Amino acid sequence: MQNFLLTLRFDGAPFCGWQTQPNGPTVQAALEHAILRATGESLRVTGCSRTDTGVHARQFVCNFRGETKIPCEQLPAALNFYLPEQIAVLGCREAAPDFHARYDCAAKTYRYHIHNSRVRDPFLLRRALLEPLPLDEAMLAREAAAFLGTHDFAGFCAAGGSAKTSVRTISRFDVQRDGEEVFFFVRADGFLYNMVRIMIGTLLEIAKGRLPQGSIPKILTARDRTRAGATAPAEGLMLWEVEY
Amino acid sequence: MQNFLLTLRFDGAPFCGWQTQPNGPTVQAALEHAILRATGESLRVTGCSRTDTGVHARQFVCNFRGETKIPCEQLPAALNFYLPEQIAVLGCREAAPDFHARYDCAAKTYRYHIHNSRVRDPFLLRRALLEPLPLDEAMLAREAAAFLGTHDFAGFCAAGGSAKTSVRTISRFDVQRDGEEVFFFVRADGFLYNMVRIMIGTLLEIAKGRLPQGSIPKILTARDRTRAGATAPAEGLMLWEVEY
Repeated sequence: MQNFLLTLRFDGAPFCGWQTQPNGPTVQAALEHAILRATGESLRVTGCSRTDTGVHARQFVCNFRGETKIPCEQLPAALNFYLPEQIAVLGCREAAPDFHARYDCAAKTYRYHIHNSRVRDPFLLRRALLEPLPLDEAMLAREAAAFLGTHDFAGFCAAGGSAKTSVRTISRFDVQRDGEEVFFFVRADGFLYNMVRIMIGTLLEIAKGRLPQGSIPKILTARDRTRAGATAPAEGLMLWEVEY
Repeated sequence: MQNFLLTLRFDGAPFCGWQTQPNGPTVQAALEHAILRATGESLRVTGCSRTDTGVHARQFVCNFRGETKIPCEQLPAALNFYLPEQIAVLGCREAAPDFHARYDCAAKTYRYHIHNSRVRDPFLLRRALLEPLPLDEAMLAREAAAFLGTHDFAGFCAAGGSAKTSVRTISRFDVQRDGEEVFFFVRADGFLYNMVRIMIGTLLEIAKGRLPQGSIPKILTARDRTRAGATAPAEGLMLWEVEY
């Protein structure tokens, strides 16, 4: 029995997220099907995180224990042959027997992508949020700095998560502009359910004047989801990097 | 009667090219349908070039003569409302009465996009050619330089075009690498049928050793399509810029 660590990339648009569920195609189900086809083994894959419907991954890590004799270096090509073209296995290596893609994850970075324009771009379709209001990225960066550090993020968390504590540590919250595109990079030791999307949604409400500047420290203290902004759409969100 | 000049961007993957035809959806047919819905006028749009099935456009210019009272600055939003999401009207302005998007075009630039990797990238799906063989972009740039200048491109032209002469002038043929992505930029006063794709296909055959380095001047002189390389796939091609 080997413990295989796979690195994936996927366009989340056609999937109902990572985790297998009865209502639609998921990345996990597609991957387990490809493993069955390639190795003959029916088994469960453990992902580094759940992702919502439509969320993308530049780097997603998962692991599974199997008996296959296919060498690690040949497994990506074998799995890619059976996977839908919106999913790619980028790499495979053998991990320690007790490695667990979710529990052992030390930090994750998400990117949120906004196309800041009045006109849609067909090449950013389902990959970025179209926001016509001109965004002041310097102001957004100042506001976002309030998220840095260790806080109780209960106000920035949707109901339905399974986390024991809502305390997390954010070590990076950058805002970058490249022409009409604005990128947010958020790195933390872990994320609550919908946490990035609610943080971005709150920043957008500040940008639109629906919430005053300086609101974020108060919402953190209040720990009240109803005071934060709406959950930003999934299409702009991408799991960017996973660290162990 | 006004002569409207529209600038478009489209993801060519779902379309059978620009020009209306009975076998599938085209950009022209979608645009004429949107004009009918938005203005009530059934009319013909003139495009700056035909494009093949699956070819993309970052900038595509077309014009039409109409009676609509919708102001130019409101026409993009009105048309985008009725267009498929893979097409966007970026801008509209009134052109001179005799402006013709194809005849008046002074130069076009195409970009060809190669993902030079052994593993596919879901985010480049139908937008780049996947080429696993490591490409030497400096060698390719040296070979491509033979295309620069005024030549008879009969050897780099598919049958079926309607051009009176096969002499064209190429003013730019750059090869750039960005990580695993290789970009070719080709600017000319005009292009023959499949000309960019055959030039790229020929460069790829030189890269693979199927044609010797230094072949291009000989194929230009021979004016023999059978001596050039295969036509590179449409998915990597994008109309990049149109000049008047």
